[in-house]
Amino acid sequence: MNPSKSKCIVLLSGGLDSTTVLAIAKKEFEIFALSFDYGQRHKFELQAAELIARNNSVHTFQRMTIDLKQFGHSALTDDIAVPKNQKIGDEIPITYVPVRNTIFLSYALAYAEVNDIYDIFIGVNALDYSGYPDCRPEYINAFQNMANLGTKFTQGDKKITIHTPLIDMTKSEIILKGSALGVSYQDTHSCYDPSSKGLACGECDACNLRKKGFNMSNIPDPTLYQ
Amino acid sequence: MNPSKSKCIVLLSGGLDSTTVLAIAKKEFEIFALSFDYGQRHKFELQAAELIARNNSVHTFQRMTIDLKQFGHSALTDDIAVPKNQKIGDEIPITYVPVRNTIFLSYALAYAEVNDIYDIFIGVNALDYSGYPDCRPEYINAFQNMANLGTKFTQGDKKITIHTPLIDMTKSEIILKGSALGVSYQDTHSCYDPSSKGLACGECDACNLRKKGFNMSNIPDPTLYQ
Repeated sequence: MNPSKSKCIVLLSGGLDSTTVLAIAKKEFEIFALSFDYGQRHKFELQAAELIARNNSVHTFQRMTIDLKQFGHSALTDDIAVPKNQKIGDEIPITYVPVRNTIFLSYALAYAEVNDIYDIFIGVNALDYSGYPDCRPEYINAFQNMANLGTKFTQGDKKITIHTPLIDMTKSEIILKGSALGVSYQDTHSCYDPSSKGLACGECDACNLRKKGFNMSNIPDPTLYQ
Repeated sequence: MNPSKSKCIVLLSGGLDSTTVLAIAKKEFEIFALSFDYGQRHKFELQAAELIARNNSVHTFQRMTIDLKQFGHSALTDDIAVPKNQKIGDEIPITYVPVRNTIFLSYALAYAEVNDIYDIFIGVNALDYSGYPDCRPEYINAFQNMANLGTKFTQGDKKITIHTPLIDMTKSEIILKGSALGVSYQDTHSCYDPSSKGLACGECDACNLRKKGFNMSNIPDPTLYQ
């Protein structure tokens, strides 16, 4: 434990965004990384999260298990086809997992409350994103407000802050930022629908946003596509 | 399914409050009751919840399993002595379970979102209560606001409402209300620290609030004490 640094939680999915957030957060904080086995159809991102946590010498890496598959209605947990090369528009896509970020942040909040941690980082982004309602700044602000009213933080001087350093960045800006901080993007996994060996499909929303980000940033894309 | 009634979720712990809420909600709604096996030290309230759901002919009763014991720091999940006959004051007591209501409500919200349910009932009470921050109206309002921003409800005309019919009632008013609605309070379990046979200790905050409620309401207390 580095006594000069405060503790923070980073929600680490193993994707491009959360890995960049980890790199940003570790400049100032001692990292407690949380990863969620929530019933997602593949585990490549979980393996990525663990590798990335280890390579970044986090203070603690914890994988929590929760069951979001029981709610169904998402292509990320159910046997529903992941849409390919679709236009990202105003509709909430089928890859949205109901209430996922609220449940992730709630677990992080419980972890924060019992460990006297006041800072939670999450890699949500409301610009180059899939149109999920729980990635927007108005939602994050509302969660933070609720969190400070519903916990012991309501009594103390120190409040919980939900940090979203990527919220208004484009994917290429995120990649440029992370690259400057030394992020190894080849270790990250973004694809919603990888092959059985973990190769990216190259056609889902996550792949298309990622490819566009590398293209625009002029940084070589290290992703292994099928 | 009664086609004339809308669907609602009731968070049913098996205690006095949530059972009264169920009786209130079922006048107008078809009931989807959710109960949580969250790692609490005893299961009597879970058994009570199931019995009460069955006796009230709910549409659906579902017990969800989540692990709040992993966070510890509560006398309801850990091997920490439950305080007896303590003065209920401004301090958050050791029976507070970190972020419990937020996690319960988040699961209920996911269930609501995928089942097109717009009403969630919870038996929180900020008058005759143990001083938990997540039982106060300002917290509930903040949760409802967050819920409507972070889900598909943000797009539609119909919003989620978190109903707290007991929030400003005394325990005796709750008991009088429930009794008028035919609630069988002998089936409910409130005690934080029951005997191995499920008899109430009579001395924890939950028992003391319950005893006071029956005393004040002049309704005989059906609770079996040790």
